[in-house]
Amino acid sequence: MQRAVRVGLIGFGTIGTGVVKLLKKNREQIRERVGVPVDLVRIADIDTKRDRGVRLAKGVLVGDARKVLDDPSIDIVIELMGGTGLARRFVLEAIKANKDVVTANKALLAHHGDEIFGAVERAGVEIGYEASVGGGIPIIRTLRESLGGDRHHALFGIVNGTTNYILSKMSNQGGEFADVLAEAQADGLAEADPSFDVDGVDAAHKLTLLVELAFGCRFRFADVPSEGIRRVTQDDIAFAREFGYALKHLAVAVRHKDGIEARVHPAMVPQQHPLARVDGALNAIVVDSEALESSMYVGLGAGMMPTATAVVGDLMEIACNRLHGCRGRVAPLGLPTAKLRKLATLPASRAIGTYYMRLQVLDRPGELAKISGALGRAGISIASMLQQPAKRRGSVTLVMRTHEASQRSLDRAVSAIEKLQAVRGKVVVIRIEENL
Amino acid sequence: MQRAVRVGLIGFGTIGTGVVKLLKKNREQIRERVGVPVDLVRIADIDTKRDRGVRLAKGVLVGDARKVLDDPSIDIVIELMGGTGLARRFVLEAIKANKDVVTANKALLAHHGDEIFGAVERAGVEIGYEASVGGGIPIIRTLRESLGGDRHHALFGIVNGTTNYILSKMSNQGGEFADVLAEAQADGLAEADPSFDVDGVDAAHKLTLLVELAFGCRFRFADVPSEGIRRVTQDDIAFAREFGYALKHLAVAVRHKDGIEARVHPAMVPQQHPLARVDGALNAIVVDSEALESSMYVGLGAGMMPTATAVVGDLMEIACNRLHGCRGRVAPLGLPTAKLRKLATLPASRAIGTYYMRLQVLDRPGELAKISGALGRAGISIASMLQQPAKRRGSVTLVMRTHEASQRSLDRAVSAIEKLQAVRGKVVVIRIEENL
Repeated sequence: MQRAVRVGLIGFGTIGTGVVKLLKKNREQIRERVGVPVDLVRIADIDTKRDRGVRLAKGVLVGDARKVLDDPSIDIVIELMGGTGLARRFVLEAIKANKDVVTANKALLAHHGDEIFGAVERAGVEIGYEASVGGGIPIIRTLRESLGGDRHHALFGIVNGTTNYILSKMSNQGGEFADVLAEAQADGLAEADPSFDVDGVDAAHKLTLLVELAFGCRFRFADVPSEGIRRVTQDDIAFAREFGYALKHLAVAVRHKDGIEARVHPAMVPQQHPLARVDGALNAIVVDSEALESSMYVGLGAGMMPTATAVVGDLMEIACNRLHGCRGRVAPLGLPTAKLRKLATLPASRAIGTYYMRLQVLDRPGELAKISGALGRAGISIASMLQQPAKRRGSVTLVMRTHEASQRSLDRAVSAIEKLQAVRGKVVVIRIEENL
Repeated sequence: MQRAVRVGLIGFGTIGTGVVKLLKKNREQIRERVGVPVDLVRIADIDTKRDRGVRLAKGVLVGDARKVLDDPSIDIVIELMGGTGLARRFVLEAIKANKDVVTANKALLAHHGDEIFGAVERAGVEIGYEASVGGGIPIIRTLRESLGGDRHHALFGIVNGTTNYILSKMSNQGGEFADVLAEAQADGLAEADPSFDVDGVDAAHKLTLLVELAFGCRFRFADVPSEGIRRVTQDDIAFAREFGYALKHLAVAVRHKDGIEARVHPAMVPQQHPLARVDGALNAIVVDSEALESSMYVGLGAGMMPTATAVVGDLMEIACNRLHGCRGRVAPLGLPTAKLRKLATLPASRAIGTYYMRLQVLDRPGELAKISGALGRAGISIASMLQQPAKRRGSVTLVMRTHEASQRSLDRAVSAIEKLQAVRGKVVVIRIEENL
């Protein structure tokens, strides 16, 4: 009988606490499935005092990550400290020490995936990162293994629970962004510094990993144009509804013949599309494949216990591979590093779409002609239009849906329109995803 | 460099043809991911003449399955012949000959899973059966591995594409069951003998496997009470809509403290529930877990290419395990046979639910009192009721929704109501799944 698999955890926050709880509660089940016990023998966190509501044996919790990294008896290191500085160093050290790694750190992998996955491969160790995208939804393993014999055309979805929670609440209960965000923060559903979530950075990190997995390529986080939800207003939500759409924050990637289109932004989704119903903290990822066609994966994309299930699932897989002597059985991205394609990233300006536009205009004759003129000169035609009295006296709110246009044409039209004397402030533009 | 993995296929029908196409088209991608080529070297089918639209090298297609089973150079046997007689023998023979097996045969595994999984374990070979449930949706691997560290309370979903196609068409375009079935048959979307699908047998086969995977137990197919969709009418669909429900054919399993409740039947699902939107040939499976909470998996549950992706995914996993010398890495049901729980199956009569009832009654005073009396004596109270003139003169159609009641009470009430002189024919009863 082989000995237990020994695990060390670095970062004892919310998810770490969930992992401790789950490993404890389902210890026997995990032992039965893996074949040997999975023992969490050490936890390092700078805060060794806080009561996290879980009881640990004496000596397990330490203040120094070195006590995990330098312990040759530890087989697997779980990195849940976050960030891309120390976390990168610790992960690379663990790999070098022939330890396997489990992480939920999408920022780390989006920025340093090349380096880390390369190191994993050279060392012949394993890395599990199911928890980094979609919480407990097993989308990583699905793309890396189950759907590995198919080719994927596109993937898109809702990959940030915080923004989806805020947009759902704004849609279902009203309230403007700032107020709903403040409530979410008070309820612990948004971070004190929410910018990674509400500015779309987190979604872009996740999209980077999904693109690499789905298209078997290298992809740079810096190439994802991302826009958050700070500018979404109740007006936009109401107009979206009137046009038959729900307002969602999407991550989208499409594989074109000449490269990859990837983007993160608020979008209007037809109310009858399944994504329109994905509310609250739920995440959902749709994969469009050649043979399988469309498949969708839905579940809680964040939270202590849902995310912990993904960490524990990875631990079990790696423990199992250790036991059977087949570490490195599957490459981190499904394909050996040397086989990853180098695909071009298409510039955002080339993306084709239909758009929603909202603007404030002085209520006087001839202004509409100027606006439609600007659109026409950019080659954009209007599919439908609504005009409503604006809150500000003497001006009207103009809302339009365009026919298909490139982002470049749209930007040109918007900048021309914003220069018109009668137009007040910025034009709000939201992409309509008619053909998901 | 290790040699190619050699695969033999028994049963060259629709899915088999899809597998040949996919292995051919994505040959290079599969080789890169697995590490060695996956070569389909022999195909056995009693029909060696029919043109299936794929070109095969000379000598690949043979009329005798022995040429696959007895060839020691073949590593993996794909069984796609169907049925539980010869298929069982061939699969057991392949296992005995130290070959791995991939199959889409849910009937075989639902009836003979004990024997086959036991043989796989003893022989130390692998069995892949992702294609047996949900077509290309990776639900088997998800339950067997990804979610293996969690505990599941319930699972339910739409697991038969044919019935979902028929019900969706009846709901969206009208037409009674027999006509829509005939159209589906003409379009190749239902079998010439559709009984396995429309009578719920196929769904019960699949539910058997899902129960074993989700709850880590043995489960007998014979213990699933199953009801098909032959008796569903346009009236029921219209009334369902009026009450705010969609009519779906569901497979449901719930783990109670004292055992497992499993059932297959038409059901009314709240229109706002995601399952209500799963239309056409789509399948969807919802898993309710302790830590992950609810997660859902949606995709095409049948068809040549979607199902072929699951077969090829299994082939790749097994080829990879062979290459890394770790066959038998994960037990067929996620748990070693000896560790599978023996959980009681709760009798259907104990299931608690709310119900829709439709009946024809002579239009005369006092009859309603008798009906509600019969319900009252069985301890069932009425949540709402509709009365409409029936097509037959002199009688009315009575439609009711009950409050919660056990199946046993309901059966008692129905049999008392059907004995009333004024009640014409059978009472139609459809379960309402209010709390999915």
